[in-house]
Amino acid sequence: MGAMSLIPEQLLAQHASRESCWIVVHKKVYDITDFLDEHPGGSKIILRYAGKDATAAYEPIHPPDMISSNLPPEKHIGIAEPSVSAVATLQTEEQKKRELLLASRPPLDEILNLHDFEAVARATLPDKAWAYYSSASDDEIAIRENRAAYQRVWFLPRILRDVTSVDWSTTILGQRSSLPVYISATALGKLGHPDGELNLTRAAGKHGIIQMIPTLASCSFDEIVDAAQPKQPLFLQLYVNRDREVTKKYVQHAERRGVSGLFITVDAPQLGRREKDMRMKFVDDGAGAKVQEGQSDVKKDQGIARAISSFIDPSLAWEDIPWFRSITKMPIVLKGVASPHDAILALEAGVQGIVLSNHGGRQLDNARSGLENLVDIVAALKTRGPWPNPNFSVFVDGGVRRASDVLKALALGASAVGIGRGFLYAFSSYGQEGVEKAIEILRDEFEMGMRLLGITSLKELGPEFVDASALHAKQAPQDNLYSATYQPLRLAQFRDSKL
Amino acid sequence: MGAMSLIPEQLLAQHASRESCWIVVHKKVYDITDFLDEHPGGSKIILRYAGKDATAAYEPIHPPDMISSNLPPEKHIGIAEPSVSAVATLQTEEQKKRELLLASRPPLDEILNLHDFEAVARATLPDKAWAYYSSASDDEIAIRENRAAYQRVWFLPRILRDVTSVDWSTTILGQRSSLPVYISATALGKLGHPDGELNLTRAAGKHGIIQMIPTLASCSFDEIVDAAQPKQPLFLQLYVNRDREVTKKYVQHAERRGVSGLFITVDAPQLGRREKDMRMKFVDDGAGAKVQEGQSDVKKDQGIARAISSFIDPSLAWEDIPWFRSITKMPIVLKGVASPHDAILALEAGVQGIVLSNHGGRQLDNARSGLENLVDIVAALKTRGPWPNPNFSVFVDGGVRRASDVLKALALGASAVGIGRGFLYAFSSYGQEGVEKAIEILRDEFEMGMRLLGITSLKELGPEFVDASALHAKQAPQDNLYSATYQPLRLAQFRDSKL
Amino acid sequence: MGAMSLIPEQLLAQHASRESCWIVVHKKVYDITDFLDEHPGGSKIILRYAGKDATAAYEPIHPPDMISSNLPPEKHIGIAEPSVSAVATLQTEEQKKRELLLASRPPLDEILNLHDFEAVARATLPDKAWAYYSSASDDEIAIRENRAAYQRVWFLPRILRDVTSVDWSTTILGQRSSLPVYISATALGKLGHPDGELNLTRAAGKHGIIQMIPTLASCSFDEIVDAAQPKQPLFLQLYVNRDREVTKKYVQHAERRGVSGLFITVDAPQLGRREKDMRMKFVDDGAGAKVQEGQSDVKKDQGIARAISSFIDPSLAWEDIPWFRSITKMPIVLKGVASPHDAILALEAGVQGIVLSNHGGRQLDNARSGLENLVDIVAALKTRGPWPNPNFSVFVDGGVRRASDVLKALALGASAVGIGRGFLYAFSSYGQEGVEKAIEILRDEFEMGMRLLGITSLKELGPEFVDASALHAKQAPQDNLYSATYQPLRLAQFRDSKL
Amino acid sequence: MGAMSLIPEQLLAQHASRESCWIVVHKKVYDITDFLDEHPGGSKIILRYAGKDATAAYEPIHPPDMISSNLPPEKHIGIAEPSVSAVATLQTEEQKKRELLLASRPPLDEILNLHDFEAVARATLPDKAWAYYSSASDDEIAIRENRAAYQRVWFLPRILRDVTSVDWSTTILGQRSSLPVYISATALGKLGHPDGELNLTRAAGKHGIIQMIPTLASCSFDEIVDAAQPKQPLFLQLYVNRDREVTKKYVQHAERRGVSGLFITVDAPQLGRREKDMRMKFVDDGAGAKVQEGQSDVKKDQGIARAISSFIDPSLAWEDIPWFRSITKMPIVLKGVASPHDAILALEAGVQGIVLSNHGGRQLDNARSGLENLVDIVAALKTRGPWPNPNFSVFVDGGVRRASDVLKALALGASAVGIGRGFLYAFSSYGQEGVEKAIEILRDEFEMGMRLLGITSLKELGPEFVDASALHAKQAPQDNLYSATYQPLRLAQFRDSKL
Repeated sequence: MGAMSLIPEQLLAQHASRESCWIVVHKKVYDITDFLDEHPGGSKIILRYAGKDATAAYEPIHPPDMISSNLPPEKHIGIAEPSVSAVATLQTEEQKKRELLLASRPPLDEILNLHDFEAVARATLPDKAWAYYSSASDDEIAIRENRAAYQRVWFLPRILRDVTSVDWSTTILGQRSSLPVYISATALGKLGHPDGELNLTRAAGKHGIIQMIPTLASCSFDEIVDAAQPKQPLFLQLYVNRDREVTKKYVQHAERRGVSGLFITVDAPQLGRREKDMRMKFVDDGAGAKVQEGQSDVKKDQGIARAISSFIDPSLAWEDIPWFRSITKMPIVLKGVASPHDAILALEAGVQGIVLSNHGGRQLDNARSGLENLVDIVAALKTRGPWPNPNFSVFVDGGVRRASDVLKALALGASAVGIGRGFLYAFSSYGQEGVEKAIEILRDEFEMGMRLLGITSLKELGPEFVDASALHAKQAPQDNLYSATYQPLRLAQFRDSKL
Repeated sequence: MGAMSLIPEQLLAQHASRESCWIVVHKKVYDITDFLDEHPGGSKIILRYAGKDATAAYEPIHPPDMISSNLPPEKHIGIAEPSVSAVATLQTEEQKKRELLLASRPPLDEILNLHDFEAVARATLPDKAWAYYSSASDDEIAIRENRAAYQRVWFLPRILRDVTSVDWSTTILGQRSSLPVYISATALGKLGHPDGELNLTRAAGKHGIIQMIPTLASCSFDEIVDAAQPKQPLFLQLYVNRDREVTKKYVQHAERRGVSGLFITVDAPQLGRREKDMRMKFVDDGAGAKVQEGQSDVKKDQGIARAISSFIDPSLAWEDIPWFRSITKMPIVLKGVASPHDAILALEAGVQGIVLSNHGGRQLDNARSGLENLVDIVAALKTRGPWPNPNFSVFVDGGVRRASDVLKALALGASAVGIGRGFLYAFSSYGQEGVEKAIEILRDEFEMGMRLLGITSLKELGPEFVDASALHAKQAPQDNLYSATYQPLRLAQFRDSKL
Repeated sequence: MGAMSLIPEQLLAQHASRESCWIVVHKKVYDITDFLDEHPGGSKIILRYAGKDATAAYEPIHPPDMISSNLPPEKHIGIAEPSVSAVATLQTEEQKKRELLLASRPPLDEILNLHDFEAVARATLPDKAWAYYSSASDDEIAIRENRAAYQRVWFLPRILRDVTSVDWSTTILGQRSSLPVYISATALGKLGHPDGELNLTRAAGKHGIIQMIPTLASCSFDEIVDAAQPKQPLFLQLYVNRDREVTKKYVQHAERRGVSGLFITVDAPQLGRREKDMRMKFVDDGAGAKVQEGQSDVKKDQGIARAISSFIDPSLAWEDIPWFRSITKMPIVLKGVASPHDAILALEAGVQGIVLSNHGGRQLDNARSGLENLVDIVAALKTRGPWPNPNFSVFVDGGVRRASDVLKALALGASAVGIGRGFLYAFSSYGQEGVEKAIEILRDEFEMGMRLLGITSLKELGPEFVDASALHAKQAPQDNLYSATYQPLRLAQFRDSKL
Repeated sequence: MGAMSLIPEQLLAQHASRESCWIVVHKKVYDITDFLDEHPGGSKIILRYAGKDATAAYEPIHPPDMISSNLPPEKHIGIAEPSVSAVATLQTEEQKKRELLLASRPPLDEILNLHDFEAVARATLPDKAWAYYSSASDDEIAIRENRAAYQRVWFLPRILRDVTSVDWSTTILGQRSSLPVYISATALGKLGHPDGELNLTRAAGKHGIIQMIPTLASCSFDEIVDAAQPKQPLFLQLYVNRDREVTKKYVQHAERRGVSGLFITVDAPQLGRREKDMRMKFVDDGAGAKVQEGQSDVKKDQGIARAISSFIDPSLAWEDIPWFRSITKMPIVLKGVASPHDAILALEAGVQGIVLSNHGGRQLDNARSGLENLVDIVAALKTRGPWPNPNFSVFVDGGVRRASDVLKALALGASAVGIGRGFLYAFSSYGQEGVEKAIEILRDEFEMGMRLLGITSLKELGPEFVDASALHAKQAPQDNLYSATYQPLRLAQFRDSKL
């Protein structure tokens, strides 16, 4: 059968087993029998859709062209007959409750800050999506410390300066931005909203800020670029493929389509253990499971993150940087730097910038926050030439909730700040309008913050506006698993415990 | 019609729409049709009273002469007929409960400290008043840190000194005060008590302390001065108007009426985002609101604070100081200084003092507390001449609850300390008697504290009486919005969750 | 009538008013009409017993001879007829519950540590007694910091030393003590147990430790000394009377009766505001009170502490020390030193020691803990001669719950440590046996602690056994009144709050 | 009667009193009348089994040969007739609930981390076992600080290194180990699982890690060695007996059986007071107890720990080290070092290593954590020669829950890390499979952690990978007993408390 054959329902039904497994995605029929055991999410989840239409389950967690580009042509069986319908997804109690919650969510003009979006998202997102978005690695120390670090920097505002006109626009890698903030890459946007990352593209275009397109977007790269306005600046986040040709094609395609900055993720040779996400797996599939006999396979059952990331190349090294330089003229930024030594290496390697980040707490737990590293790294970079260096930008991401956080980072030397989850939760709860509202809130906060700091331009910011003396004096957030397990001592007990 | 015309009810009823809107305030009829869209609180709230008597709603949040002085004479329509009655304000369940609470509030002699007033006020104030008084900006970090800062200074008392007679009186800007404390300016006193700021004036006069009259008082400036005793010292807090002539008139009038100190607020080119206050707005008006389509207007709906402060001039700058010096002979104090650089600039500008303050946490959140800044600023001032400087006073406000707090600030170099909310809550819960009780409590605490410190006069205080070594080692108060949103990790779950 | 007259019930009944008020205490009839307004606890409480037997109420809070020694002889009316009976004290619900609790209290061998005594006392003491014993001043910061300070000192134990035999006895002011601990003075022991301070005397005698007799004991000084064993060492705590002759008589009487150390309290020119105790006052008397009109009298209604302490002389000064030296040969120790300057002054004044104490947190709140002051004071004393100084002892009290606490203080330079509430709660809950159990627990903890530290004698202790580097890095305990009043921010609310 | 006599039930029944007490253990009959008062656990518990079979109670807390080796031969009465049955142990409600919990415990593949094992063990272990395993000394400060210390060390990961192949194996005292982790000794394994320590032996053998055999194992030494695979490396933990011949025999036997490292416990001249364990004692036996009259005997009733440890020699000293060197060629390691002085002494004494440990918080409470001591001790050792020293290893134990903890310790200079409770809880909840799962989890965490740190071999680790600047800035964990007793201040109360 060729790709054009019409496949009737009965025929499909004959290929609904581990021995021969066909599935329908976007009306096309694929034979994935040989692929079953390689599916990063396990074969079980696919076999549920054997001989049926799997589009609804496939869509939020795979780029649209993944199956068609990766399966060899001979496995493209044909087109499903129109009568083939998706596996009926019954509306569960949870879904019903979520729909009521969505209908009851606060009106957008009652959203006062970025925390509010997160609270709405937590209440209204499907559990699996919330688990994937909100989870971080191991004990989730780093994700919380990212936020806490900002609370250890305090303001020393100036007074009696004319702040009638205040300008919070800036330039990021040569591109104008209406805010000193860019939208950082986060994966799988369709888990949160049917339009996925397009919500970000459209809002960013309308309000003049820059979106970084994720490699692991739910929407395809081209869909996203197509949704952008003419000349709307876009960056690209890159997970480097074990097959460098794939990466080369991807990067050069992006450059041709006008992307103006390449952010290579360097803190993820392997994706982190995110236990919230992993636990969700069990809620989903494990109801009937028993205590396994024999050696269990740790590699299985590790949530969405690992399932979608097996292509990432753990051998990526400094030696690869010249090659990247050779395949693109875009500014190159290394995303996920923590050590001052690596910051210097990056400068010497000739890239255009670094992002101080611990990947939103999703990679190495207990890694210091970008904000804390910023102080040490700026100090290190100052030993290597004039500062700020117009050819080398330092960005920070992780834990930002307020424009005041951004102003702190800028005062300490950052060029701009990335916000990921903040915008993700905004569109998850309110779509494009949510993202626009988030931008407006930030804008309002920037105006307020700059006026109250006594500055009219971001260039005036410097370390004298903050007291960061307590920044290194961090305490870890509560160790929740340990606390839940430790049994506190009791006092001597009265005989009659009802008294 | 002239200002003297008698306007009958029926005629009023014909001007009860957006097209033609008359309202009655203090028996006078005004045409505010053209003003509807400029009302900082929005037009909706006014339209409720179109063609009716709005006095009850108008009074607590506007100075009595605001409407008459600001509306052009041709909009002064006349006098309402006596039969025109106020919009009936139904007694809500909340009001009933509050009246029961008021009747049940603790007897005044059970009020042991300033916290108690705040607790009574929280329980008995209308929600809107509590929200306006208690709110602070953004995450309310600064307001809580103001309090916490005092807890990082510890006493090293001295012994075996004759403390039979202890004197806690002092001089503030040349005026005698029975306590080293002045009543700091807080706005809209009638939200808390029908007599508003007069409660403070009368109690201050009786007990020999100094009140700072707020620009945004509910009572008019002259009402307040009229309530004072002859020669009772008063200070004036000033928000500088975009129209300097208005300011000049106001300041010179104050000086003529005997005010003896001018405190120019310099930390509020724009009033802060106070989300508790903003949320209250939605409770009040938003019950039927829907998720707004399209771009919402962030500038709307921002609570009382912004509504009443649009006249404040964000261009106020150091260059204006000589002009102030030229229009008044009163001592000039800059209220809201944080940076040692600005403290030096103030000294050089020839003003008579500064107030180290973050505006009770209501302006720039995350700004350091006045107490913490005090240490650095006194150190800076010492580099510029003998200290203490009889011509330059350093005041502190924010977070004070006990005389012991004041003694700490004095030991670290403050001339006197301002208390705002403490007195505000005192009269909100018990009127003038509450304020007197608060003064008595402080007096009692000063006597105790000084005896136990081993001093008989405030002049003996100095840094050797305190251990402030931990003052800079601050930790932010709990980030409540973040904590409410973060979902803690769970341990592995038992199959049968009822066990 | 003479002191021997028999007063019949009817006659008493005629003197039951403010105009003529007789009361019976310990069978004797006194005319206290003139004294009514001078009673530190107010006249109201006395008038309840006018014309009746007041012994039960009088006893726990007055030394037995207070009324007889202080009333002039002509007011000693006579002896009450045997038929005169005490005011019937109805057993309240609270008392019934307490008796059930007492019957149900944990058996003594389940008491594992000093915390346990406190927990039993809290549950079983009359509210008034608990309030008086447990209360501390103002926000009760100092009392909790006293405990917390010990938790900032950590052990660095040594190994491989023969610890078969371990000796934790020591010498305190030349007297042998089986533990490096003395029983510090606490007032009004009969509030907790009918035998009051005698419980301590007997247990101390049996186990070879030293009791410090309080000036404000419920038992008379002589009762206590009579309860001691021959040669049992005792110390005396002294509140200095405004009338120095009273003090002289008291001190010299003590010396004659064999007391071997005089601890002059120097941190209490006035007794602290203890709000728990003050609140209890209102529970007791205030049920029918109304919000007072006019100026309330702060000085009234301040709990037991101030009521019993009005005789203390606030003029006590360094100049008085030579006089004390002249009236007694006992070693003199100043109790309540905090400042290194005062420690040096004490050394120079020729006294034999100092107690680093903030009076169990009951005097100046926010005063640093004795343990923290110890480090600075030992450092200061070392600049004035060889250390340890055999003629000058440094004691510490406050916050001790474990022998390990004592070992920390000794390692940092203390000669011995005072425990007050620990023993007070022990006899309040279990009488003399409780105190003995407390001593045994400490003894067991000393054996364990010394063995595990690798020492056999207390003399081996020194600063190298502890890490006190974090001792000064204190954080204040929770500000409970502030926390109870502050209203946390809320997130945006869903429309349907039941979801 | 000889050891071979068959003892009928009736005869046994005649020896069922304090006067003559026979018991049956493992079918053998012993006369323990003379031993009753010496039984460390008290005589009462034995008398329950007088004349009966006590095996079930005896087994989990005594090594199998304890009674036979310690009772003189003439007390070995004979063999019980087969009809003699064990005291029926009724299944209590608690046991029933526990069995349901065991059946409902999470499937092993839902165990994601070592915390999970602890949570399952807490829910499913008998109360007595949980109390014994989980308890620590005094206020349980040290046990919690052990965990907290790891949270004060943060990572500074490196990037862009090829981490395709990562190797986390190492050598411990010359033995290969697949992880830089050994199983530390914990006592009484059969309290948790019928196979006791054999679970560890088998899992360790299968996965190539090293078990340290405890002196106080429930299984006999030989049982454990017999369960090992050929050449499986094993270490021995040693409590030194007062009778050195016993120790010599034990050590030399171990060496002959192939043990390759001797860990002499030096922090336990006496076993610590573990109040959780002691309280359990009362729950078990104390139901009918009354408040004891007279002096209670603190030495009684101190839980399992002291009961089983009375043989330990408190005189063990540095002078004994040469003797140990003389009786064995095994590497000798001192377990329980805290002070840098002792670390130097150990080096000079010629032993092969030290374990920085506070005995899992079970000995001296408030002792600093091994991790914190590591930094100071490595610094001290560096002053005595090249570092790392191939002939002197520094191990750490206490508080480890994640491979990331181990990586921190290694970065700071540790050779390997001991985990005790982690593996104990693993087999308590899931037997040998639990231990294997724990090893797999660690292995997975090591792979992840090393990749994300940017290293491929443990040798690359060094202090530049961590920020330990806050390690010494510790705060004590909550003082639970104090907090449970302290009564917070209240605000003034409203009259009608229902409002």
